[in-house]
Amino acid sequence: MKLLEERIRTDGIIREGGVLKVDSFLNHQMDVKLFQEMGKEFLRLYKDCGVTKILTIEASGIGIACVAAQFFDCPVIFAKKNKTKNIAGDVYTSKVESFTHGKVYDIIVAKQFLLPEDRVLIIDDFLANGSALQGLINLVRDAGATLVGAGIAVEKAFQPGGDLIRGMGVRVESLAKIKSMSVENGVEFC
Amino acid sequence: MKLLEERIRTDGIIREGGVLKVDSFLNHQMDVKLFQEMGKEFLRLYKDCGVTKILTIEASGIGIACVAAQFFDCPVIFAKKNKTKNIAGDVYTSKVESFTHGKVYDIIVAKQFLLPEDRVLIIDDFLANGSALQGLINLVRDAGATLVGAGIAVEKAFQPGGDLIRGMGVRVESLAKIKSMSVENGVEFC
Repeated sequence: MKLLEERIRTDGIIREGGVLKVDSFLNHQMDVKLFQEMGKEFLRLYKDCGVTKILTIEASGIGIACVAAQFFDCPVIFAKKNKTKNIAGDVYTSKVESFTHGKVYDIIVAKQFLLPEDRVLIIDDFLANGSALQGLINLVRDAGATLVGAGIAVEKAFQPGGDLIRGMGVRVESLAKIKSMSVENGVEFC
Repeated sequence: MKLLEERIRTDGIIREGGVLKVDSFLNHQMDVKLFQEMGKEFLRLYKDCGVTKILTIEASGIGIACVAAQFFDCPVIFAKKNKTKNIAGDVYTSKVESFTHGKVYDIIVAKQFLLPEDRVLIIDDFLANGSALQGLINLVRDAGATLVGAGIAVEKAFQPGGDLIRGMGVRVESLAKIKSMSVENGVEFC
């Protein structure tokens, strides 16, 4: 998606160690007009798939997922990273390893919101090592729901997540796929 | 706002100890069509205030804020609860006490996204004791920005937060204000 690639070129900041900061428009400050265009593109890609629910993970996936869900005319569920006392009862649980935070944590979804008859589109802001996406896929499978695919804003294609998840037979559509990036040479897209 | 009150009556679940579960439509599964109506109502209330930025807090405020921001035609910033290595440099910090989780934590916003010339509308899903809202107000004031007010989905008016924040001279508009609630008698709105 040209619009997102151009925005990454213009406003993305590359740091040493494979860090791409897009927090001026994607995951701290959020440009909801850009999100609308991303939502339309996700709809174009997945419009014939009968999506009944969009699943994302807190926190930075939620904004993109909610704006996109308007075009799909379906609810969003976000997987929570910590179990609070407000979520009682039955939940599906999966483990995610965060490379940013350097720890493993549980993600959960209440069973009542993920049903066997659901056709689920997963939406998230980043795909790098694939751990969060794998965790979300596990939740969908545990529920016996149908996984339609994943819609990702930014895929770091030089990290193994994309190949790993596609190798499992899951459809993954990324709006911007970064082939390589460096502080010296900037971003190259696939 | 009648639509939200009716939804709380229909789908909200009251638990002992003043817990209102609205996770089927507001803060776990999210009804984005409802969010659109809420966004329009926030716009009606604050349309003449020159809002340049909407500030919320992760995680459950983000969806409401992003959908509302489409009507205000402005970006959203969400305050983060944990400092990650991806947020380097200067941040505004404030403390929030979570009664749900029973702990105090820091919230942060990167200084570059909250500017003295900004006119900020805070949006959040719940107002009860007011600690999260107070923390967000502190961030706006630390930035020297103008606080236009707060737009809250559900206010528990029987808890002290609303009076406390309004007593500071801050405009607070809540779409559903709960006067009282109990497992036996259900919800009564103000």
